[in-house]
This record gives sequence, C-alpha cells and structure tokens, in this order.
Amino acid sequence: MVDHAHPSQLLATFAASLRYEQIPDAVRMRTEDLFLDWIGSALAGRTSRAVQTIDRYAQTMGPGEGPCEVLISRRTTTPLFAAMVNAAASHVAEQDDVHNGSVFHPGAVVFPAALAVAQSIGASGRDLLTAAVAGYEVGIRVGEFLGRSHYRIFHTTGTAGTLAAAAAAGHVLKLTPDQMLHAFGSAGTQAAGLWEFLRDAADSKQLHTAAAAANGLTSAYLAQDGFTGACRILEGAQGMAAGMSSDADPAKLTDRLGERWALAETSFKFHASCRHTHPAADALQQVMRSHGLQPEQITRVVAHVHQGAIDVLGAVVDPHTVHQAKFSMGTVLALIAHYDVAGLSQFEDHFNAAPIAAFRGKVGMEFDDEVDAAYPARWIGKVTVETTDGRRLAGRVDEPKGDPGNTLSRAELEGKALRLALFGEAASEAEMHALAERIWHLADAPRVGNLFA
Amino acid sequence: MVDHAHPSQLLATFAASLRYEQIPDAVRMRTEDLFLDWIGSALAGRTSRAVQTIDRYAQTMGPGEGPCEVLISRRTTTPLFAAMVNAAASHVAEQDDVHNGSVFHPGAVVFPAALAVAQSIGASGRDLLTAAVAGYEVGIRVGEFLGRSHYRIFHTTGTAGTLAAAAAAGHVLKLTPDQMLHAFGSAGTQAAGLWEFLRDAADSKQLHTAAAAANGLTSAYLAQDGFTGACRILEGAQGMAAGMSSDADPAKLTDRLGERWALAETSFKFHASCRHTHPAADALQQVMRSHGLQPEQITRVVAHVHQGAIDVLGAVVDPHTVHQAKFSMGTVLALIAHYDVAGLSQFEDHFNAAPIAAFRGKVGMEFDDEVDAAYPARWIGKVTVETTDGRRLAGRVDEPKGDPGNTLSRAELEGKALRLALFGEAASEAEMHALAERIWHLADAPRVGNLFA
Repeated sequence: MVDHAHPSQLLATFAASLRYEQIPDAVRMRTEDLFLDWIGSALAGRTSRAVQTIDRYAQTMGPGEGPCEVLISRRTTTPLFAAMVNAAASHVAEQDDVHNGSVFHPGAVVFPAALAVAQSIGASGRDLLTAAVAGYEVGIRVGEFLGRSHYRIFHTTGTAGTLAAAAAAGHVLKLTPDQMLHAFGSAGTQAAGLWEFLRDAADSKQLHTAAAAANGLTSAYLAQDGFTGACRILEGAQGMAAGMSSDADPAKLTDRLGERWALAETSFKFHASCRHTHPAADALQQVMRSHGLQPEQITRVVAHVHQGAIDVLGAVVDPHTVHQAKFSMGTVLALIAHYDVAGLSQFEDHFNAAPIAAFRGKVGMEFDDEVDAAYPARWIGKVTVETTDGRRLAGRVDEPKGDPGNTLSRAELEGKALRLALFGEAASEAEMHALAERIWHLADAPRVGNLFA
Repeated sequence: MVDHAHPSQLLATFAASLRYEQIPDAVRMRTEDLFLDWIGSALAGRTSRAVQTIDRYAQTMGPGEGPCEVLISRRTTTPLFAAMVNAAASHVAEQDDVHNGSVFHPGAVVFPAALAVAQSIGASGRDLLTAAVAGYEVGIRVGEFLGRSHYRIFHTTGTAGTLAAAAAAGHVLKLTPDQMLHAFGSAGTQAAGLWEFLRDAADSKQLHTAAAAANGLTSAYLAQDGFTGACRILEGAQGMAAGMSSDADPAKLTDRLGERWALAETSFKFHASCRHTHPAADALQQVMRSHGLQPEQITRVVAHVHQGAIDVLGAVVDPHTVHQAKFSMGTVLALIAHYDVAGLSQFEDHFNAAPIAAFRGKVGMEFDDEVDAAYPARWIGKVTVETTDGRRLAGRVDEPKGDPGNTLSRAELEGKALRLALFGEAASEAEMHALAERIWHLADAPRVGNLFA
C-alpha cells in the first residue's frame, strides 16, 4: 500500500525495490566510474593522521578479522568497522565525487557501507551496483529536500549521508520496503554533522563520513532484525526537516523516482579542494590561458560566488594546514595561477609557500546574484582579474571540469585513481590497473569479493 | 589559559580537572544512589525486544570477549559495545533518573560510558564516581543551554547525552582539558536524536541512548589519541545551538561550575512512565486519597500541564504498546486511579484492559500558565477532577515523588532496584543486595571491576 502523502515511504519503497534491470546502461557505467573514483579517494586517505586515528580506534574496539576489507591497511574486520574506516578515508583528499544540487558527496558514504555488506554476505557485482544506485538516489534527494538552510549549519554528507548509507546497505541486505522505511527512521534519528569544525581545521570531516556510513549500516542491520524507526523521519513534525531545516521541500524526496537518475548528475572532482572553489578555479584558468597571463601580472582576483561558498569558505582566511588550505579560495586560485593545477601534490608542497601566500592576499570573494540564483543546480564560475597594466578581465565557465557535461573519460578516471593510490602509497600501478579492469566488468562478477585479494 | 568568552572551554576544563576531593559528601552519596538506580533500570531492560536486537547487533559486529561487562547478558566485550548495549537497556523501563531543568536522563548515558571505560582500564571506584559527576554536570548544563526550543524536536538525552558520555568517558581516561575540549567537539558534531519516533511507538529511544553513550565514548578515545574537534561546538556560529536551538543561552553552560552540583538536582523516577506524566499522576493520587474517591466516581480528569508535556505526550491518544502507554497521560492516570501505582507490572498487565481504556477516554490535558512558567525548574502537578455527583475537585503537588525535596531513601532505592532486576529476570535478590553493599562502599574500591563477577 503506497501512500502518496508519505514521501519517506515512497523513497524507501523505491530503494528497497530497485532492480538491476531498471538501471539504464549509461547510469550503470557511471556507477562503475564512481566506484573506481571512490576507491582512489579512499586509498589517498591512508596517510592522514585523522584517518589513522579512526583506524586505530577500530582496531581497539572491533574484531581483528572478519569478512570485510579495510582498504588502507588491507586488514579484515566486521562490516561496521570496515565501513567506518573506509568512509573516514574517503573524504580527506577532497577528491571524491559531489552532487551539485544537493551539495552532497555520495561516494564517501554509499560505497563504504555497500561494499562492507556485500563482502560480508558474498553479494554479486550487480547487487553492489544496484545498491549503490539506491544509495545515491536516496541521499541526493534527501540532500535536496533538506535545502540550503540545512547546509548553512549542517554537513549534508554527514546527515543525508546517513540515509544514503542506510539505503545502500539495506539494499544489499535485501530489506523489504517496510524494513527499509524503518532503516530510514533509525538512520535519520542518528543523522548529524556540523560545520563548526572548519573554523579550527579540526578532524571532524573524517568523523562525519565515518559516522554516516557506520550509522547507516547499523540502521540497515537493525531493521533486518526487526528494529523499528519513525515512519516519517524526513518530513514528520518532529523529524529531520523540522529540526534541521527551514526551507525543506518534501516534493524533492520523490522527484521522478526511477525516471530521473540523480547519480548521473554527480560530478567528479578535478581539483583537490573543496568543490565550492572549483568554478572560480576553472574561470581563472580560462582567463589566464586566453590572455596568456603570468601570476606576477595579476594584482587582484575577485571570485563572484554563491552564498554557500561564502558560508563554507569565508571563515578560512589564513590556512595553517593542507586540509584548511583546500577551503581557502585564495590558496586554490594562487595554486592555479602558479601551477595551472591545484592537485594533491601542489597542496602538500606549496600551500603556504611565499608566492602562494602573497597571491592569496590578492583574492577576494563577492556574492553574485546570477551565480547564486543558478546554484545549486548549476555551479557557474565567474572571476574578475585586474592586471599590473590596468586591465580588468572577466573569466567565466558555465560547467566546471568533472561535471556531467564536462566529465572525465575512463582513461582520465583511471589516471586520477592511480595518482590518488600512489599519493597514499596504498596500491601499486599494477594493482590499480587490474582493479579498474575488474570494475569495468563488475556487473558480471558473481561475488564482489576483496578488492585487493 | 582560560578564556571567559569561551564557555565550551570552561566546561571542558572543569570536566577534565574535577577531583574527587572537590565533591561534597552529599553529592558523592547521591552519585552512589544514582549508580544503583541506573543498574536497576539497565537490568529491567533485559527482556525488551529492541534492546535484544541491539545486543545481537553488538555480538555480530563486536568482539565476543573483552574487559567490559554487558549487564543484561553477562557476556564481555570491548568498551564500545558494552556502553552501547548497557545504554540501550537503561531507558526502556522509563525508570531511570531525570534532571528536571534540562529534561535530560543523565544516568542512561553517563554510567554506561563511564563504567565501560573504568572496567577496561581498571579504574578505581573514586575515578568512576568522579567521572560520573563530570558527566552529569556537563550533560545537564548542555541540556539547559540548548533550551526548550531544542527539546520540542530533539531528544535531549540523545543530544546533550553525547556530550555527557564524552565527559564521563574522557574523565576516566584522564584527558587533559585540551583533549576534553576536542572530545566535546567530536561528541557535539555527532549529537542526534529526534522525537518523531514517538508517533509510531518505534524503537528509537533505545537507539538514542545507545548511540549517545557509544559516540561520546568514541569521542573520548579519539581525543586521547590526538583526534581534534571544533573548539566551540556548543556555542559556535555553526555549532549545536546554531543548528538545533532558537533559545540557547551560553551562560547556562558554565553556571556556577564547582559550586552548584546539578547532579544533586536529579530526580529518581517513581512511576514507570514518561516523567512528564508524573506531576499529574501525583496530583491525581493526592486528590483521590484526600477525598476517598474510587475510579468509578470520576467522570473527567484534566491535567494542567506545561507545553513540553503536550509536545511529547500529545501525539499519543490510543497507545498500542506498553512503551507507548508510558507516554499516554490517560493511561498513566487510569492506572493511578485503579491501582494507586503505575509501575512496570501495571503497565505490562493492564495498559489496555477495558477499565483502563475507558478511563483513558476521560482524561484531557490543558496548557497551564503557572505550570508552564515554573517549568522546567519546577514540575508542578495540577489536576481538576469531576465526579459523578457533580463535584469539581482540584489536586496539586509542588514537588513530585522522587524529586530532590521528596526523594527516595536508600532502602527505597534498593527496593526499587531489586524490583527492576527481578522484572528483567536479570539478577537475583542476593546479587542485588551484595551489589548495593558494594556501591555504598564504592569510594573505597581500588578497582571497579565487574558488577556481577
């Protein structure tokens, strides 16, 4: 019995009932792309102190063996701890995928949960791919539903991410629609994650993805065993939107389920920084390339941005760590100006070098009506560049590199994943090549199995 | 360096620095009372399906042995899972302690976390007692800080409870003030728990206490290992209050630290129902006793209540489960009218019996200015009773049974804990007697050790 005034139920029923055959080929292939891209990001997180701390905690509290793989250490454990550590590792490098409309990083929470459960019960490649699609479709819609007021305070990847992880884990576990609704209830009532940590460059971002994946997975297992949750955790009078949003739109929860594939709208990250910096980075790159500018010729750059960029990046004026630098518009534009790329190694090696720090001081952000109105559906990049010879040059990109209309090829994706794995010293070139081949044929695999056997 | 404009830091410094010698004897003894009372509540939760589900999950994901005791099954495991299951069990019977001003159940989250860490590292009885005081003082102040707007949507025992558990676990771990502040940051950014589940009588309340204890404990362990959190997670511009309250008052966070002992303001529960029903229950008892009324003589009861009671209880008009009945004002008053007590066995045996259901229909709630203005500092009970012979009788209690000015003696507490343990079939009379003796001498114990060796 489907109640059209009950969006949580419609969404849960969709997540539980989705079949592999319903997924268009292009969406399935994009899911494979995203899976490889996620593995690269998770491997890149291996050397992070925060990730290693969470891994040590998992070793202290959890079993030292089990059916599931911790990608960064290649040890095994139970699904809870594999999901926790793999998710903690996924988002450090700031290279994981993002969905623009929901400002949500689905891969970092969906794949850790889905993979852990799949390895635990011996699920097939198709089961994993279908579960991932369910997780993406749910999480993105929950993020869109919670809206911009939510994102001003809450880290949507932590909050909506808990529901996404529950949907993905729950699909692998083959929950019924009713069980899935209960899993949503348990996930939503645990959903958390505040932006306050950005001000101190604290480690919470890794905790947010870890907790979202772990708590979503927990919710799915509990629901499978009969544990009940609120049936309207999203839209109810004392549910998530009531507590954590002032502009929630329940219609977003069920927007064209089974027709619109939100997963395919997800962007791959090209620069190794917060996605809010990418449109301006591409626009600066465009204006510098088209006018043949050198960084010394630039006296001032103004990035014309949406309000969300100001909310997230505005607090970071003088970054003290690599991670903080990834949230510094000035640092990102300085790296682009000097190296034409803002990749992991540029951040590691140069984020606080004298020329970068000097350029950072020339960068400002200004709120822009057009950019803000288009956001979050479109992330327009606009910059104004002033030069030593008195010119004022405008740069603009309508779709930043990595967005669906300007996406990465499989060769580019393999190259990116390899660079990330090597950066983390977490896998060899041969391993990454073999892994990519396996993933391009994942739909034929009777069992997902270990990624690094 | 203490910054008086930084309440999170002041509170964290207090929690980390508190010494046993600073605690007044009366407060220490009340802590022992609360510890025994908590154990009773946790044991009473043994037969709950929701608790058993969480216990099975802990067995699936966690180690099958370790230094910590799961009270309801007497198996051992690591601190994370002992805290999770013991906390899940603590709040089912609705017999655990409550702090009126913060509308927060400290024992259900503080003791599971503190006990698990204490057993894990071989801490002394004094360490455990001091850590519990730290947890109570922190959690109560966080609850008061978040205010009434928070409680309308969020289950404070889940949210403030995560900080309380972090403070208690962190104190046992001997965190420095800086580490404690980071533990607060990690706890606050995981704090969650929505009231939406009440509408469906779902199992989330057990998940809330389990998650608060587990996540608070996790935050403390992570901080001990160098993991950082936001330094102003409570009062910051994108912190807990910004996201989850509209009437937060930072002054509450540091209200007379070390002088006012908020722990001693905590009430023991006498009726086996939501605390919001207790004032009216006592008032009805008073009017029936003083006028010698029988239930058949009553045609109508109006409970004059504060808004919070309407928010929490208002949705429950036709309870289908024992747990939901504990949130039904009509059911509670009906049990009082018929049995003069509303204890665990009355709920189990009679909550939906015909006379109780009939009486339930005669009960209403009305908002009352005086009661609401006094709340949450004081929980005044007022009822108006109409009788078959046309009388309108007013009942009133200014301090319900179990409140600090109307508290339970140690004999009453032992009796209550024994009834709870026997209800849960979780410990024998001899065991509970021996346990009470140990707790009354806990301050002399070099190690806390197992409660049921």
